[in-house]
Amino acid sequence: MTDFNKAIKDLEKLDFKGMFGDDFFLTWEKSEDELKAVWAVADALRALRERNISTKVFDSGLGISLFRDNSTRTRFSFASACNLLGLEVQDLDEGKSQIAHGETVRETANMISFMADVIGIRDDMYIGKGNAYMHAVADAVKEGNEDGVLEQRPNLVNLQCDIDHPTQCMADAAHIINEFGGLENLKGKKIAMTWAYSPSYGKPLSVPQGVIGLFTRLGMEVVLAHPEGYEVMPEVEEVAKKNAQASGGSFRRTNSMEDAFKDADIVYPKSWAPFAAMEKRTNLYGEGDMEGIKKLEKELLEQNAQHKDWACTEDMMKLTKDGKALYLHCLPADITGVSCDEGEVDATVFDRYRVPLYKEASYKPYVIAAMIFLSKFQDPVGLLKELEEKGTKRVLR
Amino acid sequence: MTDFNKAIKDLEKLDFKGMFGDDFFLTWEKSEDELKAVWAVADALRALRERNISTKVFDSGLGISLFRDNSTRTRFSFASACNLLGLEVQDLDEGKSQIAHGETVRETANMISFMADVIGIRDDMYIGKGNAYMHAVADAVKEGNEDGVLEQRPNLVNLQCDIDHPTQCMADAAHIINEFGGLENLKGKKIAMTWAYSPSYGKPLSVPQGVIGLFTRLGMEVVLAHPEGYEVMPEVEEVAKKNAQASGGSFRRTNSMEDAFKDADIVYPKSWAPFAAMEKRTNLYGEGDMEGIKKLEKELLEQNAQHKDWACTEDMMKLTKDGKALYLHCLPADITGVSCDEGEVDATVFDRYRVPLYKEASYKPYVIAAMIFLSKFQDPVGLLKELEEKGTKRVLR
Amino acid sequence: MTDFNKAIKDLEKLDFKGMFGDDFFLTWEKSEDELKAVWAVADALRALRERNISTKVFDSGLGISLFRDNSTRTRFSFASACNLLGLEVQDLDEGKSQIAHGETVRETANMISFMADVIGIRDDMYIGKGNAYMHAVADAVKEGNEDGVLEQRPNLVNLQCDIDHPTQCMADAAHIINEFGGLENLKGKKIAMTWAYSPSYGKPLSVPQGVIGLFTRLGMEVVLAHPEGYEVMPEVEEVAKKNAQASGGSFRRTNSMEDAFKDADIVYPKSWAPFAAMEKRTNLYGEGDMEGIKKLEKELLEQNAQHKDWACTEDMMKLTKDGKALYLHCLPADITGVSCDEGEVDATVFDRYRVPLYKEASYKPYVIAAMIFLSKFQDPVGLLKELEEKGTKRVLR
Repeated sequence: MTDFNKAIKDLEKLDFKGMFGDDFFLTWEKSEDELKAVWAVADALRALRERNISTKVFDSGLGISLFRDNSTRTRFSFASACNLLGLEVQDLDEGKSQIAHGETVRETANMISFMADVIGIRDDMYIGKGNAYMHAVADAVKEGNEDGVLEQRPNLVNLQCDIDHPTQCMADAAHIINEFGGLENLKGKKIAMTWAYSPSYGKPLSVPQGVIGLFTRLGMEVVLAHPEGYEVMPEVEEVAKKNAQASGGSFRRTNSMEDAFKDADIVYPKSWAPFAAMEKRTNLYGEGDMEGIKKLEKELLEQNAQHKDWACTEDMMKLTKDGKALYLHCLPADITGVSCDEGEVDATVFDRYRVPLYKEASYKPYVIAAMIFLSKFQDPVGLLKELEEKGTKRVLR
Repeated sequence: MTDFNKAIKDLEKLDFKGMFGDDFFLTWEKSEDELKAVWAVADALRALRERNISTKVFDSGLGISLFRDNSTRTRFSFASACNLLGLEVQDLDEGKSQIAHGETVRETANMISFMADVIGIRDDMYIGKGNAYMHAVADAVKEGNEDGVLEQRPNLVNLQCDIDHPTQCMADAAHIINEFGGLENLKGKKIAMTWAYSPSYGKPLSVPQGVIGLFTRLGMEVVLAHPEGYEVMPEVEEVAKKNAQASGGSFRRTNSMEDAFKDADIVYPKSWAPFAAMEKRTNLYGEGDMEGIKKLEKELLEQNAQHKDWACTEDMMKLTKDGKALYLHCLPADITGVSCDEGEVDATVFDRYRVPLYKEASYKPYVIAAMIFLSKFQDPVGLLKELEEKGTKRVLR
Repeated sequence: MTDFNKAIKDLEKLDFKGMFGDDFFLTWEKSEDELKAVWAVADALRALRERNISTKVFDSGLGISLFRDNSTRTRFSFASACNLLGLEVQDLDEGKSQIAHGETVRETANMISFMADVIGIRDDMYIGKGNAYMHAVADAVKEGNEDGVLEQRPNLVNLQCDIDHPTQCMADAAHIINEFGGLENLKGKKIAMTWAYSPSYGKPLSVPQGVIGLFTRLGMEVVLAHPEGYEVMPEVEEVAKKNAQASGGSFRRTNSMEDAFKDADIVYPKSWAPFAAMEKRTNLYGEGDMEGIKKLEKELLEQNAQHKDWACTEDMMKLTKDGKALYLHCLPADITGVSCDEGEVDATVFDRYRVPLYKEASYKPYVIAAMIFLSKFQDPVGLLKELEEKGTKRVLR
């Protein structure tokens, strides 16, 4: 059972005033206290739900989801978070082929937001576009509210962009906080965020970038490992370096998976596409050069295939701390012999960590709900206490 | 802030008994009092929401939406209206290629309506079909309720048909009532409902028809302007003429945009397809003559292109009353140099009216909610007062 | 009006403890008392709704629907049932082309279920797969709950599988119980579950199988009739035989529609594909043999066409008890001269039974809701009484 009182006590010590009325784009735009507030509110909401206490703080209102790509898990996580708080989800699927911009974004954002309290967006496909698009939407509805068009300002939650995947990484962090018995116990722990081979192509960079951007703030020893040519966005590496310095942790990059796994407490082996290639692809899409895209895909698959040895095998796991590093993944993983012939992880490794992996994912709806909660309510502590006192049953029984 | 007490006082003077248990197809099938009741209830609901008071009058129940065409804005407006009242939306997308009829309509209408309190339909593509289809659905569920199949009669809201676009035009009207400081101030005001060039093809006639059918009832000077060959349905022109006579306003048609804009208080420049062409297209679809449709499209685009001078330019705006007519549009507009090379309106004109245009759109969810409210409740005034007294918070805070 | 007190009294006599926390796959896996409990709870919920009393027992929570095939009616029935109880529906459409399995099913089932209280699945296309898939999902979320991944165990409702269509057949039964004035009056009544000609191909076997598997438990004389070659699954025939023996009814198979209709109290003429052909088709899909599938379809349509005399005509109806047997169908029916040239039933027969047919369908949302209710609540009787006493209005008025 999650500890409600601990969560409230934690919250009472934190300064998160800045989150009220604001959006959530990137974890490194938030203060440490604000991140801690997300975890604490997530815990508090979970604790109430575990005790069958309703956390419906909206009697009506919409949560708008905007997906620029197919997404089952993120869709359900967002829908779950909205439902938990009493918002009804309306999906807006624009299709991944279109990149709307300018006037259209401003207008559409307002037209769908008359009753919207929150907007969740996933737009991770195009380098330099996803986060920018989210800002365009957020600016549009902020302005719409100021101009008297919208009665409320819908706050934005980044459900994955080209730069960061904050709801995933905050859920990952909540998971390891729980596994290691507290945030303070993460200090000095080594995490290997490493590339791994996958037979599929063009996986987004937002997870590795999000992980190095967030975990360096927790005083951890963060090692980013990938073959040459699989660099992530240089700006995010800079963020990671600065974060590590400030938190007393460390950040370094290596081209050896073994180096990264050596004595690691946590490993996060996962495929991604090289930043430069993703940028090139974005431009090709912009130019409508489908031939060029096809050619690039072929090249990238061939490039991937040169690094099949980058896999989280049983042998690799033996290199980690006591051979027992915690294995993380955002799921779905490419499991060797299960979902593909050769992939990111051995089936036996994956199997051993299935329950923790599922638990890792279980934090996401609560993290999203917490982000919404903190953006919409001026006194979250008071409101959470009120919910507990009222004790409205979630399920009558 | 919207004035709740004024809305209630207005309602208390009106006779709208006929709306209880009834559907909403065309504005000219409703009495003036009934239209006023829609605006008043829309205001009352908005006033309550602005004060964070819940207007959830349904504890459960479904609002069914039936779209025969893609639609983001109307979908969200209907979803917003339903959510505001406590109904959960279920979409039924039939695809625009199929025109269901007869037995199928009756059966499907009943099968999806066991828990439905309201059905919203958009079917604007085919002349002579859309409104007829709505009536078939409404008749089917009325009969289903009388036969004991349905425990309640779901009432129908026309979300756009081949004849009228009542939720749009009622929202347009609510907007100008607000902008001009009251319904009484609209008497004698000149509105130019004019065709405008667009590079796209086959835009529905429901907006111009809805506008001349509604605004002639408000004692306004309504001028319909279009190039020769862009006639709207003759029956609706007849309606407009009779309305004008009864209301002390006027209605006339002209083939000169300048004539219409001259001294106008309000302009509504918007593209549409000629009625005769839409009728032809409907028949071609009926015959499955895709070659014929392609040919017709080409012809229509060429015909459009002969009238590129029909645009709401800065020069045209100067012709209007003090050069400051209120610019209306149902959105999205074809903006010259923004959404197309040459379109309905200059970018600078559109920019100047963006905030009012967005506000115009903001009335639609409330207008839809008001139509539902008036169809479902025998004593709307009493219920609105009860909601205010109870003062249940929409958002806990 | 449905009788609430009778429903409660019925429930008080029944033993349905086993349903709490359990899934609903096949009617013959449930005891007679359990089936009666479904009908009684369905009646109780309907009675409350008829009196405008809310049956919202969930304040929040999701009902997940998983459709492996397009489905309007089942989708709306499930959505209606969830809405009635306070659950919000989230659809997961996987597309009918993919048969997910193993790891993927386990993972997806958990990932979408963090806030799910119920999962409804329709998967009727592939012999040997649909029911198995449902069990895989149910096992996955049961395990997820035991492992602490899911805070609640979502219970599964079979919305149609390759073996049974329990929500349809339970609704059919509720209908005839009502038409014949009580379950006890069904004893000895003859029902003809017969094949009928349809110009379409590959209709599922779940309805005829569900009907013979359920109605044989009610002490009825169940006759299954079809042309040679249209056999249903042999296992289900075995179930029907055993059921009949236990209930004092009877079950037999005939290749004569006349034989089945002779003196029947109830007729259920409906097309289906031969079991063996469906099995072959499943294998062809598994092998991706699209040529083979095409060929099989052609063969089956030709086979069907040899049995156009298997139709529920006026002449056939004259053979039934007093010429007035109750006509059942799961809808939509292939009506001769209406939805096709030659089909399952004469238009005049269908017309005469339209209202009862629609009523038959109206039981389905309540049957689904009852299945959910009985799986989620330990003391359904107490809860139903509580709902009645509280008397929260469904619609404020």
